[in-house]
Amino acid sequence: MKTALLATAVFMAPFAVLADPLPSWTESDTKTRIIEFVNAVTDPDSPDYVTPADRISVFDNDGTLWAEQPVYFQLTFAMDRLAELANADPSILSNPTLEAAAEGDLQAIVDGGHDALIEVVNASHAGVSVEQFQDSVANWLDTARHPDTGLPYDQMTYQPMVELLRYLRDEGFRTYIVSGGGLHFMRVFAEEAYGIPPEQILGTYTDTIYETGDGAPAIIKAPGIAFIDDKEGKPINIERTIGRRPILAGGNSDGDFAMLEWTTAGSGPRLGILVHHTDAQREWAYDRESPIGKLVDGLDKGPELGWVIVDMAQDWDRIYTGGD
Amino acid sequence: MKTALLATAVFMAPFAVLADPLPSWTESDTKTRIIEFVNAVTDPDSPDYVTPADRISVFDNDGTLWAEQPVYFQLTFAMDRLAELANADPSILSNPTLEAAAEGDLQAIVDGGHDALIEVVNASHAGVSVEQFQDSVANWLDTARHPDTGLPYDQMTYQPMVELLRYLRDEGFRTYIVSGGGLHFMRVFAEEAYGIPPEQILGTYTDTIYETGDGAPAIIKAPGIAFIDDKEGKPINIERTIGRRPILAGGNSDGDFAMLEWTTAGSGPRLGILVHHTDAQREWAYDRESPIGKLVDGLDKGPELGWVIVDMAQDWDRIYTGGD
Ligand SMILES: [Ca+2]
Ligand SMILES: [Ca+2]
Repeated sequence: MKTALLATAVFMAPFAVLADPLPSWTESDTKTRIIEFVNAVTDPDSPDYVTPADRISVFDNDGTLWAEQPVYFQLTFAMDRLAELANADPSILSNPTLEAAAEGDLQAIVDGGHDALIEVVNASHAGVSVEQFQDSVANWLDTARHPDTGLPYDQMTYQPMVELLRYLRDEGFRTYIVSGGGLHFMRVFAEEAYGIPPEQILGTYTDTIYETGDGAPAIIKAPGIAFIDDKEGKPINIERTIGRRPILAGGNSDGDFAMLEWTTAGSGPRLGILVHHTDAQREWAYDRESPIGKLVDGLDKGPELGWVIVDMAQDWDRIYTGGD
Repeated sequence: MKTALLATAVFMAPFAVLADPLPSWTESDTKTRIIEFVNAVTDPDSPDYVTPADRISVFDNDGTLWAEQPVYFQLTFAMDRLAELANADPSILSNPTLEAAAEGDLQAIVDGGHDALIEVVNASHAGVSVEQFQDSVANWLDTARHPDTGLPYDQMTYQPMVELLRYLRDEGFRTYIVSGGGLHFMRVFAEEAYGIPPEQILGTYTDTIYETGDGAPAIIKAPGIAFIDDKEGKPINIERTIGRRPILAGGNSDGDFAMLEWTTAGSGPRLGILVHHTDAQREWAYDRESPIGKLVDGLDKGPELGWVIVDMAQDWDRIYTGGD
């Protein structure tokens, strides 16, 4: 039996060593730097060793873990939801902004600015229980398809990033989402898409109301936005919710700058990762001038702060989890 | 080798069966009900089996996991801290309320109501980084002693509840604190005292500010109170932060009513636990008339809702972790 065990160990070892934890990443400096960081903080003999409890990693969602063009997917959901609700009760389209949104007229919402956006969010997200809202998101994900790729939205996750999340967890990290997207929206798909459970998702949220009218108590989504999980809100939300400073942070826009800054300014080994959208062929190419996912400070200051800039066209062999 | 393993298994089994997970609880119906619940949700063959991911348990802190008389310990900290700060700079005592607080005049704060309390909290908690604040709490815990027991405050945790927390974790539960106490305050001692890490502590909090002035970024505690984690705030905070409905909730006052109500109204097996302070000899006896830890609805409606009411005098063999 001892011999059999030994033989198995010898047989298995090369596979353990050679298995590529990031098969959809090309053999680049980017990949090497990520793997070297993980090795350094997980090797008990390394001076940079970090105990598992402190291996906290945080990731933005839109443009970092899944695509965000031509418009944030949650806004597409909001407009589709509005159209669906108006089918049952046309009176909910009580003004031109909501009428335009239900018709999918994105430009009208953009022109209407913040107020128009809040109106659309309120009409599509508020006044229902969290469970009811999340059912509507799940139904939408089942049926909606992206206009350009034809994929279900939750298949437009980035396969290289899904691999990175899994690799980190295999190495004793906890993986969190810290996103400007809606908390309740993301919780519907993040566990299946990324392996990230509800308690490890931080996002933008509305107030909720605890109601105990007739029957069982329920938690109802109120209108408005109570907390925007973007820019300085990201480190603030991480400190408040997790209470530990991450050692690795990933993002794609200047909305993530403060999160990466706070993460990498900590003592000991730290890694900041920015996904740079450089691939007009397979995805989209945008940065400094884009209204969505604008990236200026990260490109200008990130490299000198030691952040890894992922060149999507060069560093990723494959883009979408649901693609080829 | 197989024989040796078998012998070990036979030798170990009776200990596993006989080991009492709650040695500081008397052999009462209370203890039996708790253990029967845990057995039901952890036995894979039970119709009430719950997967580990959903074994969420939540506990109030003041009066549930540690004592809260003659006044919430955090208020004692605030007054002591104020006196310490005034030693270095007397000008911070800029009005009679703060002067009285620094002298330990509790009645003056009670008489001043909510405004006085906020003033004391602001002067003792705000305007410093989270790290600086938590250092001051750690120093206080090292030196301060309770006026009646002479114990360090973090030794006035309830040994039976510390055992319950450990037992639940051993059985695959996650244990959270959901308390009206300050989030940053509790994080200083909860990991050592209860085995509960920072990311599993929910509490009342102030706003914080992300600052990047000269040097490294810091997160600074702002004045005021941004969220009160009490009454309906408890289920709201749990839903927002954890995103799962607990299957077990423990508290001691009507501030916990909504949390226990929401927990036990869910489908499947649920347990609500209320610690009833009945022990004037070893601790304090108080409920319906107490300004601190007032318990009326829980006593009136809890039993018919199936909640376990812990009779501290009858059900606990021992009170404080730091006591006899
Ligand atoms: Ca983004
Ligand atoms: Ca309490």
